Amino acid sequence: MSTDNINILNENVPSRIKTLRGLMQREGIAVYLIPDSDFHDSEYIGDYFKCREYMSGFTGSNGILAVTMDEAVLWTDGRYFIQAERELRGSGIEMYRMGEEGVPTYSEYIVSKLRSGETFGCDGRVLNARTGKKLREEIEEKGAFMRCDLDLTDEIWTDRPELSSEPVISLGFYLTGESITSKLKRIRVEMQKKKAEGFMLSSLDDIMWTTNLRGGDIEYSPVALSYLYVTLTECVIFINIEALTDAARNSLVSEGIIIRPYGDVLDFMSGRELPAKLMIDSRRSNYGIYSLLESRTKLVDITNPTEMMEACKNDTEIGMIRDVYTRDSAALTRFLYLMKTQYANQGMDEYTAALKLDGMRLENEGCYDLSFETISAYGSNAAMMHYSADKDNCSVIRPEGMYLVDSGGQYDGGTTDVTRTIAVGPVTDEMKKSFTLVCVGMLRLAGAVFLSGCTGRSLDVLAREPLWRFGSDYKCGTGHGVGYMLGVHTGPQRISPKYSEDIREAVLKPGMIVSDEPGVYIKGEYGIRTENILEIVEDQKTTDGTFLRFEHLTWVPIDLDLIDTDYMEPSDIELLNEYHEGVYEKIIPYMQTEEERDWLFEATRPLL
Amino acid sequence: MSTDNINILNENVPSRIKTLRGLMQREGIAVYLIPDSDFHDSEYIGDYFKCREYMSGFTGSNGILAVTMDEAVLWTDGRYFIQAERELRGSGIEMYRMGEEGVPTYSEYIVSKLRSGETFGCDGRVLNARTGKKLREEIEEKGAFMRCDLDLTDEIWTDRPELSSEPVISLGFYLTGESITSKLKRIRVEMQKKKAEGFMLSSLDDIMWTTNLRGGDIEYSPVALSYLYVTLTECVIFINIEALTDAARNSLVSEGIIIRPYGDVLDFMSGRELPAKLMIDSRRSNYGIYSLLESRTKLVDITNPTEMMEACKNDTEIGMIRDVYTRDSAALTRFLYLMKTQYANQGMDEYTAALKLDGMRLENEGCYDLSFETISAYGSNAAMMHYSADKDNCSVIRPEGMYLVDSGGQYDGGTTDVTRTIAVGPVTDEMKKSFTLVCVGMLRLAGAVFLSGCTGRSLDVLAREPLWRFGSDYKCGTGHGVGYMLGVHTGPQRISPKYSEDIREAVLKPGMIVSDEPGVYIKGEYGIRTENILEIVEDQKTTDGTFLRFEHLTWVPIDLDLIDTDYMEPSDIELLNEYHEGVYEKIIPYMQTEEERDWLFEATRPLL
Repeated sequence: MSTDNINILNENVPSRIKTLRGLMQREGIAVYLIPDSDFHDSEYIGDYFKCREYMSGFTGSNGILAVTMDEAVLWTDGRYFIQAERELRGSGIEMYRMGEEGVPTYSEYIVSKLRSGETFGCDGRVLNARTGKKLREEIEEKGAFMRCDLDLTDEIWTDRPELSSEPVISLGFYLTGESITSKLKRIRVEMQKKKAEGFMLSSLDDIMWTTNLRGGDIEYSPVALSYLYVTLTECVIFINIEALTDAARNSLVSEGIIIRPYGDVLDFMSGRELPAKLMIDSRRSNYGIYSLLESRTKLVDITNPTEMMEACKNDTEIGMIRDVYTRDSAALTRFLYLMKTQYANQGMDEYTAALKLDGMRLENEGCYDLSFETISAYGSNAAMMHYSADKDNCSVIRPEGMYLVDSGGQYDGGTTDVTRTIAVGPVTDEMKKSFTLVCVGMLRLAGAVFLSGCTGRSLDVLAREPLWRFGSDYKCGTGHGVGYMLGVHTGPQRISPKYSEDIREAVLKPGMIVSDEPGVYIKGEYGIRTENILEIVEDQKTTDGTFLRFEHLTWVPIDLDLIDTDYMEPSDIELLNEYHEGVYEKIIPYMQTEEERDWLFEATRPLL
Repeated sequence: MSTDNINILNENVPSRIKTLRGLMQREGIAVYLIPDSDFHDSEYIGDYFKCREYMSGFTGSNGILAVTMDEAVLWTDGRYFIQAERELRGSGIEMYRMGEEGVPTYSEYIVSKLRSGETFGCDGRVLNARTGKKLREEIEEKGAFMRCDLDLTDEIWTDRPELSSEPVISLGFYLTGESITSKLKRIRVEMQKKKAEGFMLSSLDDIMWTTNLRGGDIEYSPVALSYLYVTLTECVIFINIEALTDAARNSLVSEGIIIRPYGDVLDFMSGRELPAKLMIDSRRSNYGIYSLLESRTKLVDITNPTEMMEACKNDTEIGMIRDVYTRDSAALTRFLYLMKTQYANQGMDEYTAALKLDGMRLENEGCYDLSFETISAYGSNAAMMHYSADKDNCSVIRPEGMYLVDSGGQYDGGTTDVTRTIAVGPVTDEMKKSFTLVCVGMLRLAGAVFLSGCTGRSLDVLAREPLWRFGSDYKCGTGHGVGYMLGVHTGPQRISPKYSEDIREAVLKPGMIVSDEPGVYIKGEYGIRTENILEIVEDQKTTDGTFLRFEHLTWVPIDLDLIDTDYMEPSDIELLNEYHEGVYEKIIPYMQTEEERDWLFEATRPLL
């Protein structure tokens, strides 16, 4: 083995692990765990929280490190097996392949390593509460102990970055449509239903929604690191006080919110007299705060009521969202025009294409960020659902086959998400068949009328059945909720076929917005996804109940070069024509040249 | 109030209630409950078990009676409000309307009446175990007690009928395709998975399936009153020994099954040393046996594994079922021919029509009973889902509008269930529209291809969405499982849109059979239901998974006089034509006259 493959990180890893073992010895810890999370179980995490990366040298986004006195093990998933093997080489850390047969989960590993009387340690703040509770039960069943107040990495990582403290602003009423006071009132009604006098909220999107604040502490998601504690009479926010703009501070103070430093939350909750019953969502809290509160009062473990409140957008939000989505659609439409008419013939690469689109989107008024890293994928790269084109390692788009682009923006007035797949040259009949079936699935789901009370699982089949008929299935859900000036993947609603006794499903309600994104992914060949965001509206009330339906928020042409009407019912063609009529009407005002306008006219022509 | 409305039952009721209160006093019982069940939570119950009817005088099929020292209350549902009011008049028993706002449930009532230190009593054998457990918790939370060993009615009801003891036969291997030994082996595998060494089975259909026995103790369902106790080495059946035919006894003995009297089960299980872990399904056991076992060992509360085993028919069963369904379909087809061409013009009433059909069905080889009471409903009567035409109180079928018939038989080789709605004269456009949408829903569900892993809830929308689009919904599930020479409504599979965290859904598997019966019910006007029974088969295996689909088992024409193709996609028309091609092919051999054959040819003609 040559040594020049060992990167610089790895060289330091063995000594870091050694230092950690010393600290473990000092604290009497037999197994120490370093998960891959921040204090809020966020989808992306800031640099301050990258302890697992620092301690292991593995730079992938999914990894968990466990260290004993004589072993060190890192779990990661299939996306990272090759990268992890390379990055862990020489570190003394063994890679475990998550989910593969015969590979123990990290919980199983921890329990198997602990002997009776020994102690397991971790920083409970970066461990999900539900996971932590289960782990503790298993550990205690073995006669061992669990300590969750140990951030040992912090002692080793001397040049650890500061916690992010991006400015925190307050959204105007024209954007939110509801005051903090009104939101707290609704939360307190839910508390009273559960007979709880306190409510601890740790999920950042829920806190931002409640307080009408927005920050920048998490990539792509305008949230600020914070906790919120609500009682029937008080509301305390724990947040980096220096990061608050004057206006934000005033907005909190004027609505009676007490402001405390972010780092004070555990001390504050330890020192304070707690109500007899406190509401908390163990799925969306960290084990540190959960176990502290559990030791001090009776907890009612609920789904955050704020989740459903945020999910059902109010009229102000919906109004903003419709406008933002139309303008966002226009940017993508213009990009697709350029891709089809110019870029694909210029030998542009995926990375540059993404930059072009990102630039066009950010030119939109009120667009201040992307909502996730643009997926710009040509040919077989599109078969990877979470493909990311590196500047130095990406494909050139050639004038044949298909190109997929999944992208979105953060706007004043909404968070967008949209995917289109287009032909950039000649395509095969099979590609057209797959594309058409995906399009049919997307349109049928979007065109559904459904009885109030349905969850997304009852509707998933509408998008998927056209593909199932040909033995094809995509290995992910059909749709996710989308936040409002928040994370692009939110709940509780979801359109997914998965059944499990453990999955709590949310009923679909008017005002919710949800993605509709069936796909076909043929490894090594091509990938197709068509994603619109839909809004749920009332269809009609009859003696048999209230019926709901969807309306499109996304207005971007679906590439007719890829449509084969042999795979469509007349009603499918009608749905497509109606959709394209809407696209033309809404997008034509944004087309900037005669050529663009002509192209859009042609791209949205009705099929017979 | 005139007294001549008080019927004879009622006259005895007050003294019976008085006697009961005396017995309650003797036993120290403050509230006594008389539910409406047998020891096996069966859909229908035998005369021996009609304690609630005897004590209250109310003859409806759904009622629960609670008695305190100064009150007597009976709960029933909307179908019986009028009847119960009439039958309870003068009895001193007050009627409570189940499910109506402000009306306490019987559990709430019991708990509200009990004071700390008082005792609630019932015969735990007629109380569902899950219900009983919950009730006990609530009672104990109040500081009160629960006794479940009291069948006080038995002391009052001096002329109580004997327990049913119809002959019990053993099915030949040509009918079952699997020996008791083989079934027990599969059950023991499931026990070992749960680390249980014992398994108590109380549900009659599951016991019949396991032992290949059939009886006649429950109306329409060929089951014998019994319990089954399985350990890793032994199997004990508790059954009326005298009722066993010699062949049945021999079949049990030859496979090593120990036979004990039905009434011995509680004593036997009390006296015996029990394994450390015993499997039982609290949803399908009575509280008497459950609480006895719970007091003696650790219970693992599971869904009976036999439920899923019975649900997935083996090749022998499926072969028999296909043949039986074809012959059963032929009988119904010939009846529909007569109804459309003769009966409807002869002023025949619903009751006589049912008798005609029942007779034609029972003429079929191997058909020995109906599988439920035939629903023969003309006009607005069909809007009542569970309508039953009395001899002395039923409608005459006139040559206009629609007639609905829902019926089935018990055969050597299967249990059938089928519904058709036909025009018996001129119909309105709205009726045709409703009928067509129901037909489209039935055919789309039957024509679905779906990924293995789906439960019925994922598919329900296919049958329902055509109706939802027009603001119409039927207030019941779309489909239920069907037993094999057993009850016509079985689980665990179900096609239903209902979501609740408490509902355990069953994954659909090859070999299952399931009904597909959407409908439209317009109160006071008309009712439409089209019901086919479907078999689940494998469609194909691809790299994306195993795909399943349905095949029709029912082959009866769908009335083309009621079809309006304006409400159909071309693919719907294709599905209907293909189905009718199958009907013609399978049923023509059973048509007995040239007229019948000509009619069938016309009734199954392809639509363009």
